[in-house]
Amino acid sequence: MIRYVTAGESHGRQITVILEGIPAGLRLSQEDVNENLRRRQSGFGRGQRMSIEQDSVEFVAGVRLGETIGSPICMVVKNRDWENWKDIMTSGSSIKDAKQFLLRPRPGHADLAGLIKFGRKDIRDILERASARETVARVCAGAVCRKLLGEFETVVCSYTSEIGGIPANVKGLDLKKILSLSFQSDIRMPDVKGEKKMKELIHKAAAKGDTVGGVFKVIAQKVPVGLGSHTQWDLKLDGRIAQSLMSIQAIKAVEFGLGFGYSSVPGSEAHDEIYYSKAKGFHRNTNNAGGIEGGMSNGENIVVSCVMKPIPSLAKPLRSVNIKTKKSEVAEAVRGDVCAIPAAAVIGEAVLSYELARAFKEKFGGDSLNEMKTNYGSYIENAKKAFA
Amino acid sequence: MIRYVTAGESHGRQITVILEGIPAGLRLSQEDVNENLRRRQSGFGRGQRMSIEQDSVEFVAGVRLGETIGSPICMVVKNRDWENWKDIMTSGSSIKDAKQFLLRPRPGHADLAGLIKFGRKDIRDILERASARETVARVCAGAVCRKLLGEFETVVCSYTSEIGGIPANVKGLDLKKILSLSFQSDIRMPDVKGEKKMKELIHKAAAKGDTVGGVFKVIAQKVPVGLGSHTQWDLKLDGRIAQSLMSIQAIKAVEFGLGFGYSSVPGSEAHDEIYYSKAKGFHRNTNNAGGIEGGMSNGENIVVSCVMKPIPSLAKPLRSVNIKTKKSEVAEAVRGDVCAIPAAAVIGEAVLSYELARAFKEKFGGDSLNEMKTNYGSYIENAKKAFA
Amino acid sequence: MIRYVTAGESHGRQITVILEGIPAGLRLSQEDVNENLRRRQSGFGRGQRMSIEQDSVEFVAGVRLGETIGSPICMVVKNRDWENWKDIMTSGSSIKDAKQFLLRPRPGHADLAGLIKFGRKDIRDILERASARETVARVCAGAVCRKLLGEFETVVCSYTSEIGGIPANVKGLDLKKILSLSFQSDIRMPDVKGEKKMKELIHKAAAKGDTVGGVFKVIAQKVPVGLGSHTQWDLKLDGRIAQSLMSIQAIKAVEFGLGFGYSSVPGSEAHDEIYYSKAKGFHRNTNNAGGIEGGMSNGENIVVSCVMKPIPSLAKPLRSVNIKTKKSEVAEAVRGDVCAIPAAAVIGEAVLSYELARAFKEKFGGDSLNEMKTNYGSYIENAKKAFA
Amino acid sequence: MIRYVTAGESHGRQITVILEGIPAGLRLSQEDVNENLRRRQSGFGRGQRMSIEQDSVEFVAGVRLGETIGSPICMVVKNRDWENWKDIMTSGSSIKDAKQFLLRPRPGHADLAGLIKFGRKDIRDILERASARETVARVCAGAVCRKLLGEFETVVCSYTSEIGGIPANVKGLDLKKILSLSFQSDIRMPDVKGEKKMKELIHKAAAKGDTVGGVFKVIAQKVPVGLGSHTQWDLKLDGRIAQSLMSIQAIKAVEFGLGFGYSSVPGSEAHDEIYYSKAKGFHRNTNNAGGIEGGMSNGENIVVSCVMKPIPSLAKPLRSVNIKTKKSEVAEAVRGDVCAIPAAAVIGEAVLSYELARAFKEKFGGDSLNEMKTNYGSYIENAKKAFA
Repeated sequence: MIRYVTAGESHGRQITVILEGIPAGLRLSQEDVNENLRRRQSGFGRGQRMSIEQDSVEFVAGVRLGETIGSPICMVVKNRDWENWKDIMTSGSSIKDAKQFLLRPRPGHADLAGLIKFGRKDIRDILERASARETVARVCAGAVCRKLLGEFETVVCSYTSEIGGIPANVKGLDLKKILSLSFQSDIRMPDVKGEKKMKELIHKAAAKGDTVGGVFKVIAQKVPVGLGSHTQWDLKLDGRIAQSLMSIQAIKAVEFGLGFGYSSVPGSEAHDEIYYSKAKGFHRNTNNAGGIEGGMSNGENIVVSCVMKPIPSLAKPLRSVNIKTKKSEVAEAVRGDVCAIPAAAVIGEAVLSYELARAFKEKFGGDSLNEMKTNYGSYIENAKKAFA
Repeated sequence: MIRYVTAGESHGRQITVILEGIPAGLRLSQEDVNENLRRRQSGFGRGQRMSIEQDSVEFVAGVRLGETIGSPICMVVKNRDWENWKDIMTSGSSIKDAKQFLLRPRPGHADLAGLIKFGRKDIRDILERASARETVARVCAGAVCRKLLGEFETVVCSYTSEIGGIPANVKGLDLKKILSLSFQSDIRMPDVKGEKKMKELIHKAAAKGDTVGGVFKVIAQKVPVGLGSHTQWDLKLDGRIAQSLMSIQAIKAVEFGLGFGYSSVPGSEAHDEIYYSKAKGFHRNTNNAGGIEGGMSNGENIVVSCVMKPIPSLAKPLRSVNIKTKKSEVAEAVRGDVCAIPAAAVIGEAVLSYELARAFKEKFGGDSLNEMKTNYGSYIENAKKAFA
Repeated sequence: MIRYVTAGESHGRQITVILEGIPAGLRLSQEDVNENLRRRQSGFGRGQRMSIEQDSVEFVAGVRLGETIGSPICMVVKNRDWENWKDIMTSGSSIKDAKQFLLRPRPGHADLAGLIKFGRKDIRDILERASARETVARVCAGAVCRKLLGEFETVVCSYTSEIGGIPANVKGLDLKKILSLSFQSDIRMPDVKGEKKMKELIHKAAAKGDTVGGVFKVIAQKVPVGLGSHTQWDLKLDGRIAQSLMSIQAIKAVEFGLGFGYSSVPGSEAHDEIYYSKAKGFHRNTNNAGGIEGGMSNGENIVVSCVMKPIPSLAKPLRSVNIKTKKSEVAEAVRGDVCAIPAAAVIGEAVLSYELARAFKEKFGGDSLNEMKTNYGSYIENAKKAFA
Repeated sequence: MIRYVTAGESHGRQITVILEGIPAGLRLSQEDVNENLRRRQSGFGRGQRMSIEQDSVEFVAGVRLGETIGSPICMVVKNRDWENWKDIMTSGSSIKDAKQFLLRPRPGHADLAGLIKFGRKDIRDILERASARETVARVCAGAVCRKLLGEFETVVCSYTSEIGGIPANVKGLDLKKILSLSFQSDIRMPDVKGEKKMKELIHKAAAKGDTVGGVFKVIAQKVPVGLGSHTQWDLKLDGRIAQSLMSIQAIKAVEFGLGFGYSSVPGSEAHDEIYYSKAKGFHRNTNNAGGIEGGMSNGENIVVSCVMKPIPSLAKPLRSVNIKTKKSEVAEAVRGDVCAIPAAAVIGEAVLSYELARAFKEKFGGDSLNEMKTNYGSYIENAKKAFA
């Protein structure tokens, strides 16, 4: 069973993640993870903090001499700015006057609900953990899962498909072309014209102290048939992926394949007809389903779109209430990004990688990479001969 | 901890659900459940089977003398047509020639992926469990959860917001009016003009052996602040609700509040500003967030939209492949509904009720209804006094 | 993932169990289960109820035409005496005067703690579910797991090793002989002399309205190396098996191998030295560890002992308190068995079978029996070549 | 939901634990944890490593300004000897000749089973994680849980009841006296005469390069009625506690109350009769059950005994096989303790504290300490009035 749990506050000492169940014998370097952390930090429209951070992972458990050994993998990303925060974020109680309470909850954030739920009086006690900084941990976990998937040739990628209401025009382009275009764009947008408009939008928003949201697509290629299961509600792969994606900070919607577009096509045109050839085996010529039917992967690319709301940390803050005085005031101002779609897409890749790795392990078992590969190979071999 | 698990094949003897963790002392009658089962079966655009079914629940464990006793609640819905199916669906191996193999997997269904995953040679071994008939069990579990939520005045409801690409026009209507209009419509559509168009569309689709999809909204009213948690990815309420809804057969997208619309509004207009008054306490005048911020309920209505793809069981079936001969053929034809949005919305209500009841139990604990209510009351009382 | 959940009250309509994760393609008949149910009901020292019961399982989901299909398996054992209980145990609220409250909690039972926890006023609301009748469900689940294990030649068995303080003398006997002797005994005692004494003890206890406890051993033979894992506390096989066994009604202690005897031997004699031969591979000549080292199966027999307390339902009841009047009275008298060690041992076999099947699935994966067997075979093959 | 997960190898950089679900507002200092870490390291019969270690915790997440804030608590205990191990235990692959393979698996350890399961060729890849060093993490998690329980006056303690087959004679002593005696003993033995014999035994074993095992008791005082549940097998408190204790390295048996002694007493004397008085409410005059009936706490002390096998890391090692040459050799020699019962008892306290805290949270809910206390208070109050 692959599972992970994260800990850490945004301005605390470090972000920590423990990831379990990765088979032994997987080659793994810190660079495998750092590469993903860098991608999370890059992208046009990011605020100042990204440069302070320069995130870099340390393996503190579970990896030895360059490979996994079956133990839980513990990864740490230190806060490089800790010295400036240690008075405010210390675990000790001795520091005087450390409690400069934040009192004006920010709309769109966990602040107010968290204060009430956990019975706190300082918004910092909530926002530090609710912050998207936590996704550093998910990117670490996802990077290891991605490395594992790579051993089975499964590749997870993403691109920006809309920012500020402006969609990417990818008509007529195949996925390879789309991805190659998106790699050339610092907002991961596979549409040069669209990109220009979006950047203007981001500039304008920045100037006004405003933010913009958007949509990204996460795609998994070369996924074997039969991950997840139709047999129980909580085993369905689409449900699990939806949970993982929706649990990313600021994500408000998730759709597979055609998604909301399914409402506008009749059944006769909605579904992906089944074909067979010796070369390809069973296959489809369309992929409206986004690679999942009946809660299982069907062998086509898994394609999920997610919307990210505009970041609610605004330089020009919204109306709020001082929780102590109950007077109307503006919300706490916390500097942040103007647009973080490219980063969010990287996080989306991470959690999709996790859900797929988890489903691989459930289906194929295996405590060593070799064992998992052997089992995978036997299944693929047998699947080809099925129904013969 | 509230949890449930279902069992049963579409044409098997019965559908069974075991639901655990409901506090003792909740008054509960079979009618509380049957009322929801009837709503699941009703609605314009349904096929023949609905009349055969006339689903009715039996409590076979966990309810005594009209109330829950803390034990797992086991509910059974018998298949009224079992006599006609027992040769095909028997668990025994003695019946001769029972295996009339279904060989042509239906696009849009679990059929092909399931056959390969589970190594089967008869599509029936997959489709019987993958069928939306399983949602009978979820409606049963959800009905009990709904009854529990009712003790805290939390109400879960739904309406149709789009069918076949035609949206309901609800501009200027408040939720009360919307719901009251939808109750008068046999497709649960709160828009008389829209309803007419949709029904025409359904009629036309039926005539062609085609099907149509659509969108429904599920809404929970009077939800206390602080269900779910921002502290860990798998505790976030939106993630959990998304999993539950996406795991419903034929659901392909889930969005909270503004959902994909968030891409088109700037941050300054996207978030729900915070107000305070003695009468209302902390509150909002808008609800773009759909009632969830930072993975927690924020006290506003929880509003989720789901798209249902057109039912893939078509009277005029799609292209497929005979798994034995590998020849191209049309898929197995299975009679079904033309449009099941109203039913899907009832199932959506059920799973949302479950997720909320589960989150209630986590937050408030309590093994008896009385204990849970006392804890709830103390929290609400304290929340009012918070920050004083 | 293999998991199960049970429902049902002792005198309710039926006991139900849903068992998930059993691979498709396992041949399974009701007789496979009934055989175990009969063993649970047999044995010297049982009360009257055993003959009323004559338990017999019905498969109501997950088994088709004599084999599993991957769906959750739902099994039902009806209460043959339901007609006599339906007024008292009905789920409906209409029956008048049904509430003949039981008010005197029985020492040694869930009665008093359950009443307080769940806020009930009738002991029946607790005792019905806490009853060992629930183990019928576990025997059903265990029987299916046992069938699965049989496909890998893993065999789970048990015998009585002590009753009423009288130990079975098995000195010098090997397991095969011990089991064969125990099969000839209606208290499953592999020691003719000991058996005679025990039966006298049981007779005397019966005459006095008293009960006796004892110890049984559960053994799994031909368990592959490497089930469970040393890597996390909740993955350790011994911990899981201990939970499953300790959760059986009336079990108060669990030990592996030498168990408490480990305190009396020095380290130099306590551990099972490691040998190697071409024929046997790595092996041991002793099995003090009871087949588990570091939380993993080590290839030797898994041997667990459990103590069962004397059944606390006494014909001549103990002192208690009337919960309404608070006056001292004797506890409710409920007829029961004098000694149920042989039955408890069958339940012990069932839960051990479940835990092993669960660990098999985790290690080997596989959605069909064929897939699981292939994966198992590859592992065994590779294990032989390991370190070469 | 309270849960924890650990990571870290014995000679790796650090041991890490993430503990979730502790309510916000609990005062917590590193000293609260260090106090328990010191107790784990102390005790007569410990080897050299204990002095190198001088374990000390760092809170790296979840604690701010001296109290919990609802976030996951991450605790780290650094390896003070890391400099000497970093070449052997580095995660990097660059270090030359680091792989000095350990090839002779130690009987009684995870070594051989782990090598085969995970497909490794160096025993170090297994023993580093299987080591009892991991229990540092459990003591950290347990210390926090203990602090939480203290808020409800629940106290968890332990003492040594047998070493090397020599039992402590505590006849006629009450628990208070027993504990006070054990605190004066550096093997936690509440029996001066017995202690002397045991120490002699330990000395002799040390001289011979041998080790000794023993038995300890863990006790929880002032536990409220109704933790755990009789309603489902995996909710029973005794099963859960048994899993947690059995999962401790070297523990081979667990018993509640009378434990294996139950076999020797008739039912009429085995169970704890129920009494009532205004002052005490419902209570017992005996506690054979060890505080648990029907899988629930019954308000009496929870009393569990555990046997620890003699430590299998022997200075004078046992017979083994070189996994490469397959020749018979002695096992790897790893220096260790002669007797670690007192340490094991501290670990036993930690995991019992965890299981009780988890059960508290399930029953009482609550996201802040204040909320949990309010709910607890209401329950206790209502329990007193029950049945009135």
